[in-house]
Order: sequence, then structure tokens, then C-alpha cells
Amino acid sequence: MVWAGGMAVHPLPESECWTLLDTVDVGRLAVSAADGADIFPITHHVHEGAIYFRTAPGTKLAALVANPRVAFEADGARDGRPWSVVIRGVAHRLDIDDEIIASGVLGVVTPVDDDQWNYVRINPVAVTGRSA
Amino acid sequence: MVWAGGMAVHPLPESECWTLLDTVDVGRLAVSAADGADIFPITHHVHEGAIYFRTAPGTKLAALVANPRVAFEADGARDGRPWSVVIRGVAHRLDIDDEIIASGVLGVVTPVDDDQWNYVRINPVAVTGRSA
Repeated sequence: MVWAGGMAVHPLPESECWTLLDTVDVGRLAVSAADGADIFPITHHVHEGAIYFRTAPGTKLAALVANPRVAFEADGARDGRPWSVVIRGVAHRLDIDDEIIASGVLGVVTPVDDDQWNYVRINPVAVTGRSA
Repeated sequence: MVWAGGMAVHPLPESECWTLLDTVDVGRLAVSAADGADIFPITHHVHEGAIYFRTAPGTKLAALVANPRVAFEADGARDGRPWSVVIRGVAHRLDIDDEIIASGVLGVVTPVDDDQWNYVRINPVAVTGRSA
């Protein structure tokens, strides 16, 4: 994504934000940890107005359990014009197998094999996007 | 950036992280705000082992002044192999004109024109990277 200098930037309607998010596989999750902010690339899945991802046990999971107010960003280019979408929301670890299966997040492909996957849903509080 | 399933991932030495960061223009800044984590796409500049960027007054600047422990992420692909670098560090707003000029951050091109630029340096605490 390159935002050229002086390029006019306009906000995106929420429906377009969701459409664009579904065109890319990878976004970034921002969490508040005890010693400051942290950020993780994640492979995400969009389903019924929420973001789903899976994660192994570790610092990412610990941080979002301790402080579930997270932010997620993804970006890309459409017809040569850069776009970026940010979702601020609340992360919920999924406990119910039925919900995990219904979300489609099991189809998410991640580069690490791990038997102890945890599945997380971000319930959006604010969805904002911009494009050149 | 697409991380294919089962793709072997290896950590990157710090020197390579800096080299890769300098090949892309845009990264993402994660900050801890009072109501949770937030994330902003930023156009960054690498200079002498630190990340520089500029920002207009607003929520991003307010958040990092209130909690300067931030994280920065950038990613891309080299020879078809995805990479991602994360820098955790401390954000400092630059007050000294000489330092701003010497850093080269004045050459950073951003999509918004604003007269009231603030210049920020992230002093790294931890630099980590991975690549397929």
C-alpha cells in the first residue's frame, strides 16, 4: 500500500469496509498489554459482521483476555487505489464448538501448526475505512 | 502478504528486519488508549536504528503521549516469500528542529496535508521478524 503525497483520501461506508476486508487474508491485531501496546499479524476470517481468527496459547491470547478492547487493521489496493480499514472492538474467546464451526474460522489457514488452537471473535464497536 | 498453510516460518536477524522495514513505506502503529488498543496506518521512515513518522494533532498523538509504549508492524514479500517485522518501543515526540531535519523524516510523504505536523521517533526495545 502506498499513499502518494497530496492524494485525496475519503472515508468508506461500513458496508464497503466489510467487502474490502474479505478480499485480503492477513490483518494486524493491536492489543494493550501490561507493558504497552503490542501488535500481531493475523490471518482473519469475516463472518456476519465480525472478525474471527485463531491463535495458539501465548502472549497474544493472554493480552486479549486481560484487555479485550482490541483494534484490527487490514489494507490493500483496489484498482490501484490504496484502502485501509480499522475495526475497534471487543475480543471474545469462543468456547462453543457450534459457534466455531458456524463461523467458518476453521477454514482459516495459518503458517503454524498447533494442536491447541483458540478461536476468537472480535465484536465491532466502530468500523472505519478510508481510500484514496 | 499471504502465509500459506504449513509454510515453515523462521525468525529474522535484527539487521535483516531493518533492511526489510526500509523497503516498504507504510506500517501500522499500535497504541494503548484509555478505552483499549488502537491501530493506525503510518508512513514510516527508518534512520539509524529508529522509526520516525509524522502525525497531525489528534487521537493518535494523544494516545502515544499518554502511553508511549507502542508497537509498530510492517510486512511485505521478498522473492515471493512473506515477511513481517514488529518493533516494540517507546515513542518520543521530537522537539528539536535539528533532530527532525537530521532524521530525514521531513521527506516522508503522507496523504494528508496539515500545517501542524508533529514528528515522532520510536526508540526500539525489541525488534522481531519472521519470514517464510
